[in-house]
Amino acid sequence: MKDSHWRPRVAGALPSLIGRMVSRQQKPPGTGPGTLVHTGDRKAESVLIRLIEYGPDFIDEGQFEDIKACLDIARARTMSWVNVDGLHEVGVVEAVGEYFGVHRLVLEDILSTSQRSKAEDYGDHLFVIVKMLSFDLATDSILSEQVSLVVGESFVFSFQERRGDVFEPVRERLRQGKGRIRSRGSDYLAYALIDTVVDSYFHILEVVGDRIEELEEQVLETPTLELLERIHHLRREMLILRRAVWPLRETLGQLYREEMPLITTETGIFLRDVHDHAVQVIETVESLREVISGAMDLYMSGVSNRMNEVMRVLTIIATIFIPLSFFAGVYGMNFQYMPELSVRWAYPALLVFMGVTAGGMLWAFRRKRWL
Amino acid sequence: MKDSHWRPRVAGALPSLIGRMVSRQQKPPGTGPGTLVHTGDRKAESVLIRLIEYGPDFIDEGQFEDIKACLDIARARTMSWVNVDGLHEVGVVEAVGEYFGVHRLVLEDILSTSQRSKAEDYGDHLFVIVKMLSFDLATDSILSEQVSLVVGESFVFSFQERRGDVFEPVRERLRQGKGRIRSRGSDYLAYALIDTVVDSYFHILEVVGDRIEELEEQVLETPTLELLERIHHLRREMLILRRAVWPLRETLGQLYREEMPLITTETGIFLRDVHDHAVQVIETVESLREVISGAMDLYMSGVSNRMNEVMRVLTIIATIFIPLSFFAGVYGMNFQYMPELSVRWAYPALLVFMGVTAGGMLWAFRRKRWL
Amino acid sequence: MKDSHWRPRVAGALPSLIGRMVSRQQKPPGTGPGTLVHTGDRKAESVLIRLIEYGPDFIDEGQFEDIKACLDIARARTMSWVNVDGLHEVGVVEAVGEYFGVHRLVLEDILSTSQRSKAEDYGDHLFVIVKMLSFDLATDSILSEQVSLVVGESFVFSFQERRGDVFEPVRERLRQGKGRIRSRGSDYLAYALIDTVVDSYFHILEVVGDRIEELEEQVLETPTLELLERIHHLRREMLILRRAVWPLRETLGQLYREEMPLITTETGIFLRDVHDHAVQVIETVESLREVISGAMDLYMSGVSNRMNEVMRVLTIIATIFIPLSFFAGVYGMNFQYMPELSVRWAYPALLVFMGVTAGGMLWAFRRKRWL
Amino acid sequence: MKDSHWRPRVAGALPSLIGRMVSRQQKPPGTGPGTLVHTGDRKAESVLIRLIEYGPDFIDEGQFEDIKACLDIARARTMSWVNVDGLHEVGVVEAVGEYFGVHRLVLEDILSTSQRSKAEDYGDHLFVIVKMLSFDLATDSILSEQVSLVVGESFVFSFQERRGDVFEPVRERLRQGKGRIRSRGSDYLAYALIDTVVDSYFHILEVVGDRIEELEEQVLETPTLELLERIHHLRREMLILRRAVWPLRETLGQLYREEMPLITTETGIFLRDVHDHAVQVIETVESLREVISGAMDLYMSGVSNRMNEVMRVLTIIATIFIPLSFFAGVYGMNFQYMPELSVRWAYPALLVFMGVTAGGMLWAFRRKRWL
Amino acid sequence: MKDSHWRPRVAGALPSLIGRMVSRQQKPPGTGPGTLVHTGDRKAESVLIRLIEYGPDFIDEGQFEDIKACLDIARARTMSWVNVDGLHEVGVVEAVGEYFGVHRLVLEDILSTSQRSKAEDYGDHLFVIVKMLSFDLATDSILSEQVSLVVGESFVFSFQERRGDVFEPVRERLRQGKGRIRSRGSDYLAYALIDTVVDSYFHILEVVGDRIEELEEQVLETPTLELLERIHHLRREMLILRRAVWPLRETLGQLYREEMPLITTETGIFLRDVHDHAVQVIETVESLREVISGAMDLYMSGVSNRMNEVMRVLTIIATIFIPLSFFAGVYGMNFQYMPELSVRWAYPALLVFMGVTAGGMLWAFRRKRWL
Repeated sequence: MKDSHWRPRVAGALPSLIGRMVSRQQKPPGTGPGTLVHTGDRKAESVLIRLIEYGPDFIDEGQFEDIKACLDIARARTMSWVNVDGLHEVGVVEAVGEYFGVHRLVLEDILSTSQRSKAEDYGDHLFVIVKMLSFDLATDSILSEQVSLVVGESFVFSFQERRGDVFEPVRERLRQGKGRIRSRGSDYLAYALIDTVVDSYFHILEVVGDRIEELEEQVLETPTLELLERIHHLRREMLILRRAVWPLRETLGQLYREEMPLITTETGIFLRDVHDHAVQVIETVESLREVISGAMDLYMSGVSNRMNEVMRVLTIIATIFIPLSFFAGVYGMNFQYMPELSVRWAYPALLVFMGVTAGGMLWAFRRKRWL
Repeated sequence: MKDSHWRPRVAGALPSLIGRMVSRQQKPPGTGPGTLVHTGDRKAESVLIRLIEYGPDFIDEGQFEDIKACLDIARARTMSWVNVDGLHEVGVVEAVGEYFGVHRLVLEDILSTSQRSKAEDYGDHLFVIVKMLSFDLATDSILSEQVSLVVGESFVFSFQERRGDVFEPVRERLRQGKGRIRSRGSDYLAYALIDTVVDSYFHILEVVGDRIEELEEQVLETPTLELLERIHHLRREMLILRRAVWPLRETLGQLYREEMPLITTETGIFLRDVHDHAVQVIETVESLREVISGAMDLYMSGVSNRMNEVMRVLTIIATIFIPLSFFAGVYGMNFQYMPELSVRWAYPALLVFMGVTAGGMLWAFRRKRWL
Repeated sequence: MKDSHWRPRVAGALPSLIGRMVSRQQKPPGTGPGTLVHTGDRKAESVLIRLIEYGPDFIDEGQFEDIKACLDIARARTMSWVNVDGLHEVGVVEAVGEYFGVHRLVLEDILSTSQRSKAEDYGDHLFVIVKMLSFDLATDSILSEQVSLVVGESFVFSFQERRGDVFEPVRERLRQGKGRIRSRGSDYLAYALIDTVVDSYFHILEVVGDRIEELEEQVLETPTLELLERIHHLRREMLILRRAVWPLRETLGQLYREEMPLITTETGIFLRDVHDHAVQVIETVESLREVISGAMDLYMSGVSNRMNEVMRVLTIIATIFIPLSFFAGVYGMNFQYMPELSVRWAYPALLVFMGVTAGGMLWAFRRKRWL
Repeated sequence: MKDSHWRPRVAGALPSLIGRMVSRQQKPPGTGPGTLVHTGDRKAESVLIRLIEYGPDFIDEGQFEDIKACLDIARARTMSWVNVDGLHEVGVVEAVGEYFGVHRLVLEDILSTSQRSKAEDYGDHLFVIVKMLSFDLATDSILSEQVSLVVGESFVFSFQERRGDVFEPVRERLRQGKGRIRSRGSDYLAYALIDTVVDSYFHILEVVGDRIEELEEQVLETPTLELLERIHHLRREMLILRRAVWPLRETLGQLYREEMPLITTETGIFLRDVHDHAVQVIETVESLREVISGAMDLYMSGVSNRMNEVMRVLTIIATIFIPLSFFAGVYGMNFQYMPELSVRWAYPALLVFMGVTAGGMLWAFRRKRWL
Repeated sequence: MKDSHWRPRVAGALPSLIGRMVSRQQKPPGTGPGTLVHTGDRKAESVLIRLIEYGPDFIDEGQFEDIKACLDIARARTMSWVNVDGLHEVGVVEAVGEYFGVHRLVLEDILSTSQRSKAEDYGDHLFVIVKMLSFDLATDSILSEQVSLVVGESFVFSFQERRGDVFEPVRERLRQGKGRIRSRGSDYLAYALIDTVVDSYFHILEVVGDRIEELEEQVLETPTLELLERIHHLRREMLILRRAVWPLRETLGQLYREEMPLITTETGIFLRDVHDHAVQVIETVESLREVISGAMDLYMSGVSNRMNEVMRVLTIIATIFIPLSFFAGVYGMNFQYMPELSVRWAYPALLVFMGVTAGGMLWAFRRKRWL
């Protein structure tokens, strides 16, 4: 913490705040709505397609480079979860869209990665966007990745921007066949994925919370500009977090409140549970924001406290020695007729007088609690 | 108050703010929803089960270590209140759940102790979470404990994290058979328990209010950093209080407004009364928050006031003696031709002049109200 | 205003802010809801019961010590208004409650004097709580008294905490038989009482408004800590005012919007009028709060302005004399070879140089508008 | 602007802020609701009644001192607009009320001039209150005047507090018979009057906006207390403006949304247009409030900037000369054995050393950008 | 950035903030509602009318000076988009209005260019106002232009204040016949235009975001008043942006939620998509506002940090040399009996003592972290 290597603003190390809020790569002019263009950073080297097929008593996993091959297999069996890592190959998304008759705007939303979290019901399929977040400890920054789910009767497609996700526990549960997950429908799988994403927010809240408390303790001791910058930086990161979480409440509310044909009542109860978690995350985010602005207040107090201390020292020194110097100056004058100068005990008397004056001032300062 | 032993941040003395908002012990990866894992600190040494059976004209109390034995007895009679202290033995909750056909998510919520206050109607049973708060005077901290109620036709289960609660008055009323409590149903008992919890909030508000007024008075006299830290600390504790109380309004509103089969109209009137109390608590919390931020403003004013005083003293001393020293300095110069030096009355004249100058300045300062 | 006798915090002079928001005397443990215990300060020495009986063409007044006697008479005639001053004799409230079949929770609310303003319809009677406020000029504090109205077909019971109220004009109107008041029902009497209470708020707003403008003017001249404390104190008193007024809007809205059997359409129009007044009061309270926080900003500005002035004086004096002292110091040195010392016009030349330097600096300060 | 004659607080020049929000002249005690008492300042010397009668192809204007005469004529013809300037003669309002069967509370509202803007439908007549504002450039203050409209099938009564209004353009349009105004009903006339009032707000916004930008520019150059006071004053005037405008939105919304028998669909479209203007005014008021609080921030920044400058000058002078004075002081000591004193080049060497020291410091200050 | 030529307030360079919010050119008095007067700056030299006629398999473009000629052609074919640049020729708008039977208030709204964004359904035509924004990099200012759309069954009229717009991509798509745009109705064209306008907001957000981050970095290094002024200026520009965007959400919500006869379900889905974008813009604007006010906090921190540094330097220098000067002063006194003066090693001893004192102070400062 104390190493001065912390630099959240190293050129290129981080996209800017607004850059993380709205995507910079606008669609080229002349392209209409529904035109499929990937408008985000290319975060994966190659597209990886993973298929998990399962039923109450079996599970099959496979990796594909080619979406067609995957779709052919997926269609054949009962429940399929196709996970696509990497969005820069537009063809993959397009193929999926054509195969299942997904609306063009859905495909466009999957590809433009600065969407708000939302849920849209298209009758035979459901489209859900959530934000998968992670906290980069090196730069104290929140990294956001868009996860789009297309949920049909017997399939779930999940699209991610890069490899690596928080879904491993879900895969593990599918593999082990524990609990209900293998015997339920696609809505339950979608729920499980969303639940995992929301659960991962709690971890970020904890890390940020710890970081703030750490900074807060330092800020009272030594309120440096660097600390302020770090607190300020965290405050801005909370804006990212907040933007990801707020719409989620509405999204999940829609999923469990509105009667959607693809979502069973039973799964609805589970979605209400995730909704409660999202509300808890939102409240904690708001609390954290208050804590952070409290930390900035502490910084200001710490600074003005130090200023006070500096001023006090200056005042004490100056107030004691300036009058004493004056007395010394008086007896340094060259007037011919200064009777005191020739008095034998005048010099020690003056020294005593000076000592008493200084002592009296120190006593006055102590009474005023300046010492 | 003046002893410097106050340390709200002693290592290990208190869980961090965020730690008290979201529970740190996440469920291990690979466990699905509905998997029963206790995700809170183990706050009780052993699980204690207390059963109170009662009807209009009898009451029976018993303590159990084994939940099965308790359930066998509970089933046999009319109204039973089973209170479980300690959540770390998951089996107890599970046994209760199986016995009464409680939804898995309810059981999960009972065990994860960072839930928001809520009420859920499952037809034949009702699930209510409230937060029992206490204020630790040693650390000025609010301790929160989750109380879960499962209310059925003829039973109330209450789960607490640790021993010791605010329910003793309810037990006493049951024992004495005073009022209506023994002749009414399980909804009235649930109401009585919630009422007791909400009433206990008022005590906390009072204690916090007193503490703030105490700090406020000190802050104007001697605005030390420690006082600021304490006010700041209280402000953060109010976040905990607020988080506990806000959702309660909604919870109680649901209980008395929505038509729930288990809640009679008569009890609804009582629940409206608790609802009114909860609203009163919320308003007082908000007022307290304003009072606290007013105290921080006072701190800043106190600090800048002191700074002012320090500056004034410095300015008065410096402004009086710096010019005087200059005059002394002039007559300390060694020029050969300084006619004043040989004038007999020059020295006393200069002293008089200096005295007049100093007096004039003091008079000017007084006019400017700096003295 | 300038006398330093103003002490809003003299021990015992005032209950604390929070003490005025939540009542300190909690019901003793073991008492259930509906148990009648007076939970407020005993503000009246003895209970005083005043009965006014009236019809379109007659009016009768009487005072009673015993509620039974009063009730016997009240029942016999057409319209009765029973006003009870002092709540500490629980028996009075209980007797009224039994006589008219009032709900136990209503009786409990009458006795616990930290209720929010509210209106509850119990079919054959209506229960209304409003807050009667007064402003104590000696301590700049708002005193709040709970007024509970129980309105039946042919009676209005009003309960107050202490003697003295704002209802005298209503009594006068009843006595004089002017206007419609005597020929209308109990709902109109209740309206008249509430109207009087709300009207009295305007007076408080005016007094507080005047007080703030007075403080504001002083604050710019001499921003003392005492002024700040007074402004701060008024800001807190506004919290009390606000708490009393906000729920009133809802209360009155309920009374005229919801169809209550006891309230005629005609009276509804009058209640809408009071509702408008309440809204006006709320808006003025919010404006006052802004004005007060503006006054605190002015205080801070006044302080920093004074600091500025102090600093300017210090800087001017120091900046002029420190260099001059240096020059004097140079020619006070005892080097053997300092040719200037023996030049005849050196001393006056130096004095002139010093004068010019000082003048130049003064001119520079004037240009910078420091003088 | 620079003249110091600006005094918004000259005694008697302006009613106080709160005085302009709630009317000071309370009705005397003992007067019931519906009692007609004028509760505002008497702003007109005598009551002036102007009648404009018109139809599609004629127009007639007349002035009356006596309301009876006016009413007799008004009744006779088709469309009448009666404008009353001055409210202190209660008889006028009463006569109108009796003639048309207007509700007593409406008459009371007309006379008490601190009402909020509102619209009330009484079946055969409609009652509308709007606030006519003007900006007094001499005192930077907003003057508010209550305009009450009573709209019937074939008449519009408008009551104003004083002579002079913004309705001249409407009269001109009536006289010239341009557009639809003469061929439409009373609702359209009422719309035209309200529209004119709302349009006049835009002018005030502009003037206030200009004033603020003017102050803002000055504040950065010379942040004087007077400027702050003026900004602060404008901020408070905005409270008046805001209070007048906010309820207007609701009022106009009611007029065009609720189905009122007196308002035709066609006029409803026009009222929606005024409603849009009112919303625009509200948004601009809110923006102005933000701009004003931005100006106060600028003031604080300007002040702290000046403080900085002052401190820098002090520091530079003190930091350069204090050490130099010390060196001069050293060689002013009278020790017998100070070998340097007799060295021939010691004095010039010291001077050079002093010059180099001062130069070095200046260079250091320049590097720190203090110069 | 570093050049001091930046002047957002150059006289005449920019209309004032409020001037951009409410239009200054009020309609002359005596003109009724529905009177067509252009109330904005004349921003185009001459009016330019461009007609694009298209169907699934053809497209025709033409430019007209005369609206009649244009309208004659437009009527003849299937889908027409008439774009009018420049509003100062009222006749053009009037002619269009008469030709298609557009409501007078719509025409008035087209001409008064300070309208809020809105959508109004008039049965056979739809009226939509949106704000086209651009960011002027030279003055850091947002320029706003009102775009009005009148959408009928087979035509779209778009009115702009000046030449140059963001609609070129739409024209290109029409020319190339790519996608659905040519085969869909007028509602889809209107959607395409609105979509283009909303998309252009993202660009502004990015530019403003970059600008703020740039300023923020500078502010920590050298917090000059100019930087503050620029941040302050951006904060005010955000008010303009916000005013343009907020009503848009409502506008678009109306368009896709309310069942308007002219809007097909299919286009409704696209409008929901633009609505989502508008919400995203609003959220980003709010985030930007927070970032800007964070930047102002940073400025204040930067300033107080510098002040601190200045004070520290002053204190260190003064605290070291003032006592030393005192000692020098003491031995500069002219008392006859000062035994130290004749001690041989007194002078070097004093120098050593002074050095030690200075060293000790430096060490103390280092311990306090002032160095």
